[in-house]
Amino acid sequence: MTYCVGVLLEDGIVLASDSRTNAGVDDFASFCKMTVFERPGDRVVVLLSSGSLAVTQAVISRLRQAADDEPGGGPPSLLGARTMFEVACVVSDAMRAVERRDKEHLERSALSFNGSFILGGQISGEPMRLFRIYAEGNFIEAGADTPYFQTGETKYGKPILDRVIKPSTTLADAAKCALVSFDSTMRSNLSVGMPIDLLCYQRDSFRVSMRRRFDEGDPYFDALSEQWSAGVRTVFSQLPALTW
Amino acid sequence: MTYCVGVLLEDGIVLASDSRTNAGVDDFASFCKMTVFERPGDRVVVLLSSGSLAVTQAVISRLRQAADDEPGGGPPSLLGARTMFEVACVVSDAMRAVERRDKEHLERSALSFNGSFILGGQISGEPMRLFRIYAEGNFIEAGADTPYFQTGETKYGKPILDRVIKPSTTLADAAKCALVSFDSTMRSNLSVGMPIDLLCYQRDSFRVSMRRRFDEGDPYFDALSEQWSAGVRTVFSQLPALTW
Repeated sequence: MTYCVGVLLEDGIVLASDSRTNAGVDDFASFCKMTVFERPGDRVVVLLSSGSLAVTQAVISRLRQAADDEPGGGPPSLLGARTMFEVACVVSDAMRAVERRDKEHLERSALSFNGSFILGGQISGEPMRLFRIYAEGNFIEAGADTPYFQTGETKYGKPILDRVIKPSTTLADAAKCALVSFDSTMRSNLSVGMPIDLLCYQRDSFRVSMRRRFDEGDPYFDALSEQWSAGVRTVFSQLPALTW
Repeated sequence: MTYCVGVLLEDGIVLASDSRTNAGVDDFASFCKMTVFERPGDRVVVLLSSGSLAVTQAVISRLRQAADDEPGGGPPSLLGARTMFEVACVVSDAMRAVERRDKEHLERSALSFNGSFILGGQISGEPMRLFRIYAEGNFIEAGADTPYFQTGETKYGKPILDRVIKPSTTLADAAKCALVSFDSTMRSNLSVGMPIDLLCYQRDSFRVSMRRRFDEGDPYFDALSEQWSAGVRTVFSQLPALTW
């Protein structure tokens, strides 16, 4: 499985991804699922990958190659796109190109084409935007009513997001909330695992200044996890008893 | 969907079920999913149903009919079984009888035979026991390592069970915990809904003395839900901030 979260706030965007991949419980590995395209002063574009690693890596490689070719006059790239909507279309086109190449080969082994992305960022002249791109290449965009997207193992970590996240939530609180959400998820699903990559993008900064990786034994993450666990148990113990 | 929980404790058994059934979001209804077979002083047997309502109702009707015929010399019934293991076998046999009757008709419409039960109770002379019975009629039994079973929409309500439930947990705490677990589930999945049926069986009592239904607007449930929500938010706000 995988767990990725993207949160669109008034103050910025929080993006986080786990690193565990597996092809069965006897075959798991660690791969970074967060990819950053940055041109300081102009744009920050972040992709969180979920689904088949072969699919998402192929998409990312195509996007990187096109970005490196920029501005060589090739097809539009993440660095050449004028808006985040165009960026989403570029990602979508790359997915469809990979699908055209791989789908029939996958289907011969009864495998489905399976990969999706959370895409967040900002291009100079535009507000920040957050998208969820499906395997088919179509996508949806977050707004004030639903300011976050999750992919992968979404259920265990959803209640805390629903309780805390609003567009007015601070970047600091949303980052903390994303980590608590990962803690709940990793406790319940072994196929979601550390390290966790966390990036907080500050509105109108057009550069990445807050990015951190949390690995096993990270003192901050462990303190957060223990304090959360103890606090939740205390709240529970103080709930009124049921009378019959 | 459905949400059912059964918890086996040293002091007793807690069983809870929601009441929502649906055949699509435009077709939902309310049915009690908790069935109690009681012979005061001798046994208490409780079944929580999940899956196709046609399947689980047919199984329950067969079990009731056989129990009513007891002791008329028919096949063993829930009231005639000597142990909870025999009770589980009786339920399993009833499921397989329904499957024999219905399966091919369901398959003609590409529907699978789908129904399962949580079974808990105690028969005089035996300790309390808790089972989870699958659609195929095979079953597993709870023990000290895993003292609870869930069916239906299990994920949202699992973290609180994992944090609180141990065999030594009191009946009162486990009942409260089950209700918090329902609260989290109903917030996130519209196909799980009130009323909630809750039964706490006290070890060696061989009668049902604590059973209660929580409907929309129940003052205790609302207070629990609000206090839990506020408490969790307070714990969150007190977590240490991340420094970059």
